[in-house]
Amino acid sequence: MTATTSRHRPARPTVGIDMGGTTIRGGLVDPDGTVRRFVRRPVPLDAAGRRAAPADLARELAGATVSGAGAVGLAVSGVVEGGRLVRSANVGIAGVDLRADLVAATGLPVEVVNDAQAAALAEVRTGGAGTRGVVLVVTVGTGIGGALVVDGALVRGRGFAGEVGHTVVDRGGRPCGCGAAGCWEGLASGEALRREAERLLPGPRRTVDELVERAGAGDVAAFAAVTACAEAFAEGLDSLCAVLAPDRVVLGCGVLARGGLVADLYRSTALRRRWVRGAHVTTATWGDCGGLVGAGLVAHDAVRDAVPARG
Amino acid sequence: MTATTSRHRPARPTVGIDMGGTTIRGGLVDPDGTVRRFVRRPVPLDAAGRRAAPADLARELAGATVSGAGAVGLAVSGVVEGGRLVRSANVGIAGVDLRADLVAATGLPVEVVNDAQAAALAEVRTGGAGTRGVVLVVTVGTGIGGALVVDGALVRGRGFAGEVGHTVVDRGGRPCGCGAAGCWEGLASGEALRREAERLLPGPRRTVDELVERAGAGDVAAFAAVTACAEAFAEGLDSLCAVLAPDRVVLGCGVLARGGLVADLYRSTALRRRWVRGAHVTTATWGDCGGLVGAGLVAHDAVRDAVPARG
Repeated sequence: MTATTSRHRPARPTVGIDMGGTTIRGGLVDPDGTVRRFVRRPVPLDAAGRRAAPADLARELAGATVSGAGAVGLAVSGVVEGGRLVRSANVGIAGVDLRADLVAATGLPVEVVNDAQAAALAEVRTGGAGTRGVVLVVTVGTGIGGALVVDGALVRGRGFAGEVGHTVVDRGGRPCGCGAAGCWEGLASGEALRREAERLLPGPRRTVDELVERAGAGDVAAFAAVTACAEAFAEGLDSLCAVLAPDRVVLGCGVLARGGLVADLYRSTALRRRWVRGAHVTTATWGDCGGLVGAGLVAHDAVRDAVPARG
Repeated sequence: MTATTSRHRPARPTVGIDMGGTTIRGGLVDPDGTVRRFVRRPVPLDAAGRRAAPADLARELAGATVSGAGAVGLAVSGVVEGGRLVRSANVGIAGVDLRADLVAATGLPVEVVNDAQAAALAEVRTGGAGTRGVVLVVTVGTGIGGALVVDGALVRGRGFAGEVGHTVVDRGGRPCGCGAAGCWEGLASGEALRREAERLLPGPRRTVDELVERAGAGDVAAFAAVTACAEAFAEGLDSLCAVLAPDRVVLGCGVLARGGLVADLYRSTALRRRWVRGAHVTTATWGDCGGLVGAGLVAHDAVRDAVPARG
């Protein structure tokens, strides 16, 4: 798949950015998904810093290419409508016109999309997940996101399709940042694992990495904690598979892209569930970069659609 | 929409049958969805009677038309693969080749489909739900079924897409006929309402109708029971809407097709939920007949596809 701004000139790269609750990633993205000049940073803790982070990074990346960037795509965790981040359980800002911010910062055309939808697009178009049948992409980072692709086309519904992390799997359970209680991501996300690390580990290094290391080294309580998150993940994925009967499930991002014990347990536990079984369950080709690649591809689409090739 | 077996002869009607956990319905179905000679009966209680019921009804209906029926379509609650009912939480038979039974009984071409998928097809093609965007059909009968239509095409995935009743909404909750615990339909289906009737009502008339009548007449406990089922229904539907962001939600079958208090409470409670809000939520045009109409339409499709019109 290629996209060119005209028939005679190769497309300029786009800036692709993916902002989650913890990390912001950016890069220059070619039409085939190749990423050049990859940048990865923690997201600032304060709301003003968070809001400024994508614009700062976009300006920096757009200035780093001699040809100039053609457009900017931003993938962000939350509900996006018309360039605005309407609602987000993880990013810590909402009701913000991120497209306007990015246009002001770069002067380029800007597309803002949901991060899981962007990652799904990357996997289907350039990651080998293919465009046949029903593909469900589930991303486990700070929260849990998802996206649905049917015969190669992203299913967006009223826009926010794929907010799988906020399906209620445990009525009356743990309160969620979204306002509801018992959401799936409260039991199985990277944040859920982090809470287990805080609960179980002594001393200063109470991180998911430390929890996983201990679990792998035979610590019974740590292993039980990771297993419980994996079990909750499998249950939620099983419900999604009952609804969608996907031909293929792509697991990606953050916790799962890291590979190792968590990814193995999450995947193997899920594969034992009755509705999941029979689906082709793979790990995201793009790992943690699916969101930024997809954002870059969406920006390429926008440039191509805005300047139709002449016949 | 019309379907003809050849360019010069109007299509013969098909037999459409819908078998749920409690009731079996049948009729002769024209290509435009018109139902003639409608029959509605309780499903026999024993497994042999249940298995025989669709074939008996199909033979009876096929013999009731002078032109002869063109084909038979059977919609059934459960997972259908290649004419077999593989699994069913409500019908009480499984691992049964219903297509073979019907072919033996009628000598006609036979299609077997999931009941909610059939109902969705009926609503989208001939019920006015339309073929644009994402349409989610949820049927509340003995269990809860569902089907997803994207831009007019049924999303089947690996076949069983739409088994929404078996999404787990209450981990560790009430055991379900499917083998899992805490399934949505255990809290909000017609069967869940029936259990409430048995729990609350004295004397012999411990039915859903009686429960609803009392709730409407000011009985506080009865009203609370119906409200609790409506709340659980709304929560589960909200999760589905988080996943699918449907443009339109069609509520139908059994409990909801009956209208009145239950349908009103289920719909109004759902419309207050954050992910549901914004969707166009309607009641099924076909009411309880969606499954049999859809089954009849699928049978028409099969006849049309088998005998291509000559140019």
